Amino acid sequence: MDYKSIRKEMDVVLERLVDTKPGNPLTDHINKYPLPSSEVIISILWDIFDIVFPGYYTTKEINDLNLKNFINSKINSIYEKLSVEIRKTILLDRQLKNAQCEQCSDQCMNKSDDRVTELTMILINNLEHIREMVVKDVIAAYAGDPAAQDYSEVILSYPSIFAVTVHRVAHILYRAGIHYIPRMMSEYSHMRTGIDIHPGATIGENFFIDHGTGVVIGETCEIGNNVKLYQGVTLGALSFPRDEQGSIIKGKKRHPKIEDNVTIYAGATILGGDTVIGAGSTIGGNCWIISSLPPNSRVSVDFSQWNSVSQRKKN
Amino acid sequence: MDYKSIRKEMDVVLERLVDTKPGNPLTDHINKYPLPSSEVIISILWDIFDIVFPGYYTTKEINDLNLKNFINSKINSIYEKLSVEIRKTILLDRQLKNAQCEQCSDQCMNKSDDRVTELTMILINNLEHIREMVVKDVIAAYAGDPAAQDYSEVILSYPSIFAVTVHRVAHILYRAGIHYIPRMMSEYSHMRTGIDIHPGATIGENFFIDHGTGVVIGETCEIGNNVKLYQGVTLGALSFPRDEQGSIIKGKKRHPKIEDNVTIYAGATILGGDTVIGAGSTIGGNCWIISSLPPNSRVSVDFSQWNSVSQRKKN
Amino acid sequence: MDYKSIRKEMDVVLERLVDTKPGNPLTDHINKYPLPSSEVIISILWDIFDIVFPGYYTTKEINDLNLKNFINSKINSIYEKLSVEIRKTILLDRQLKNAQCEQCSDQCMNKSDDRVTELTMILINNLEHIREMVVKDVIAAYAGDPAAQDYSEVILSYPSIFAVTVHRVAHILYRAGIHYIPRMMSEYSHMRTGIDIHPGATIGENFFIDHGTGVVIGETCEIGNNVKLYQGVTLGALSFPRDEQGSIIKGKKRHPKIEDNVTIYAGATILGGDTVIGAGSTIGGNCWIISSLPPNSRVSVDFSQWNSVSQRKKN
Repeated sequence: MDYKSIRKEMDVVLERLVDTKPGNPLTDHINKYPLPSSEVIISILWDIFDIVFPGYYTTKEINDLNLKNFINSKINSIYEKLSVEIRKTILLDRQLKNAQCEQCSDQCMNKSDDRVTELTMILINNLEHIREMVVKDVIAAYAGDPAAQDYSEVILSYPSIFAVTVHRVAHILYRAGIHYIPRMMSEYSHMRTGIDIHPGATIGENFFIDHGTGVVIGETCEIGNNVKLYQGVTLGALSFPRDEQGSIIKGKKRHPKIEDNVTIYAGATILGGDTVIGAGSTIGGNCWIISSLPPNSRVSVDFSQWNSVSQRKKN
Repeated sequence: MDYKSIRKEMDVVLERLVDTKPGNPLTDHINKYPLPSSEVIISILWDIFDIVFPGYYTTKEINDLNLKNFINSKINSIYEKLSVEIRKTILLDRQLKNAQCEQCSDQCMNKSDDRVTELTMILINNLEHIREMVVKDVIAAYAGDPAAQDYSEVILSYPSIFAVTVHRVAHILYRAGIHYIPRMMSEYSHMRTGIDIHPGATIGENFFIDHGTGVVIGETCEIGNNVKLYQGVTLGALSFPRDEQGSIIKGKKRHPKIEDNVTIYAGATILGGDTVIGAGSTIGGNCWIISSLPPNSRVSVDFSQWNSVSQRKKN
Repeated sequence: MDYKSIRKEMDVVLERLVDTKPGNPLTDHINKYPLPSSEVIISILWDIFDIVFPGYYTTKEINDLNLKNFINSKINSIYEKLSVEIRKTILLDRQLKNAQCEQCSDQCMNKSDDRVTELTMILINNLEHIREMVVKDVIAAYAGDPAAQDYSEVILSYPSIFAVTVHRVAHILYRAGIHYIPRMMSEYSHMRTGIDIHPGATIGENFFIDHGTGVVIGETCEIGNNVKLYQGVTLGALSFPRDEQGSIIKGKKRHPKIEDNVTIYAGATILGGDTVIGAGSTIGGNCWIISSLPPNSRVSVDFSQWNSVSQRKKN
């Protein structure tokens, strides 16, 4: 096969890929404002980590001489990058919902800019709050795991700290009604940790997930204070309400409520928007819960008749 | 300890590491043609993502002015990189299987080059097909998850879309008989998503995996259209046939067949090459299935006597 | 909102973030020696991979001409980087435990340097041992998985090889009493593979984990030779001994012992520091084991009354 005929074959493919465009409106993003950049979103998260845990992720030493300047540079960096990305989501939402906005007036544009500033400042103004919450999460992780040697080890190497810190950031943006960015953040965290927390979930103080791989926490979950989860726990939906056409109805409460001081061991599954796990309860490994439990319940799988054991004869 | 004696100790280690080489033929790759580069394989995948979802992963805006040029540059990039990597696998296979090929003739080399072009063009010619399949996967994901706000959110942040798109690429290369590259692609996807799909698995249209962490889909699986899986589902082998020496026999059908319109909830395990899940069935969370089920079956774990519950006295 | 008032608002946030510092001693690392750099730790791991699997991860061809120089450059690179990172952990440990060391003498500093060299050389001197162990792990993986085509495919694309090689490195550093670095290594591996092996776990020869996502192996686990695990297996703690104040006591034996030639299928959970799984045993998928089993046991979940099946009427 000579180069000429390869080129010819490739041109046929090219024409078809360009041609199918109008038939594939779902999967292209052509002639539209650009989407948020996941690279930039990730770098905003690392700026926030530098503010929450100063001195942990930088190669240079942070001390009283340079601390203020360091934090200031990170705040500025977050402002500059986040406002650009939020602006994209606002322009896109307007473009998708209202075609006439394409020729919109300067006045309308200025209004968008005010909104961008307002939304960006919501995160900036919450940085101290995020930091306070995360300190408590670190203490909870240290107290909850016999293998943890000190707080620095927890911060450097516990996926729970990464996932929950990202969640606390994403949840603030989600509540502010920002599109795309919170889910991009939570998916970055899911990719790194195997912990999938929807930005919509509400999570109280002193939260710790040990190991974490396979944990799923749904959009409408409510979790109280001092809750501890292990790997593979699902807090999910039991069923999806459907409309008359059989399409899933979006936005309903579908996920459980976990009250204060609850511990849920590995692999347990708790489902349903009406399910409430009462305060002080302990849910054993592999349990399957689809209805509410009163406070101080202890649930465990009855393994007494679970396994069948036989001993092989020695050869 | 002075530098001289450290150097001396390090030289002893060096001599041993170089010396053990002939005794460790399995783990070295010395005096051989180079292996495919995982960095290049990954960049090929991102070129394909740019073709399948133009405008989603680039910082620059894609519009009708630059679309054709953009797609063309990606096709060229795939051709150049993939042909180099495929060539490596062909040379290696020949080197491993046939020592005399080391001094092979120009004629044999030309034949290899033709084969490289042919295999590379199989992928190029399938780009449109991949795109069509992935559009349907995106629609299935949006329809199947109440938390999804629009198609763009699904494309930007659903691990299922990433994993299944990579699989559709890897499967084409696997069927073409290309060595190493499909598994390197599937493992990159496994690393990012926690979803482990062997490139050999056959998967129909409108496929969606929600959350995904811990999903395993084996090499000889056959999955129909409109199938939906949740996190932690295993479609695996029940046992491995062994030869007279007790070694595992490779290449047999070992994994189940899932017919059209089947939904499999979180943590379910379906095993065995003879197991067929009939069309329209629903498999509940945590089910363990090792034999076939007729169409329209509904299977669920009987949890009525599963958990033992006690309520603690208040202190 | 004009820039002046945005700046004013940001300055308030800045002052608070700097001010809260003395109240948040846990989450800052200010005025302290720097922590190990995870970027450098990761690059040390890749140097080790290049020594263990020469020719697998480099774009350049490794042959008898350049092999010795290649290995030598990697040994030098490990020495230089690891000694810097180990030095940080020693200085930090001293700073955290003994404030008076801040004005410590030259003599004390020299003693530290000797200790750094000693600890670094422990890893260097174990490189050959690590390589020998990993060769056996590769053979075990190939023998244990019918889908594996050859050793190169196993090395290039099996997460088990990545996770277990990292573990063998981290375990040596853990036993040498090095702080932070082993856990940073194991967490990098956990992030990439979904396999969470604490550096403290003792693991014998010919170890293989198939698929791997969700596997957890606790700090005080002891695993014999020829052991094979599947995805989602937990070798964990049953309960945590607590002191009189109710705080968890650190450092006790909490995790099971798995003797030689044991296979543990997907999703099985084995818990407790007194639990011993006898040699030659097979633990079925989803089993839940909290007490010891004699050699050659076969345990499986009794699924005969597990699932309830119904067949829907055709519409």
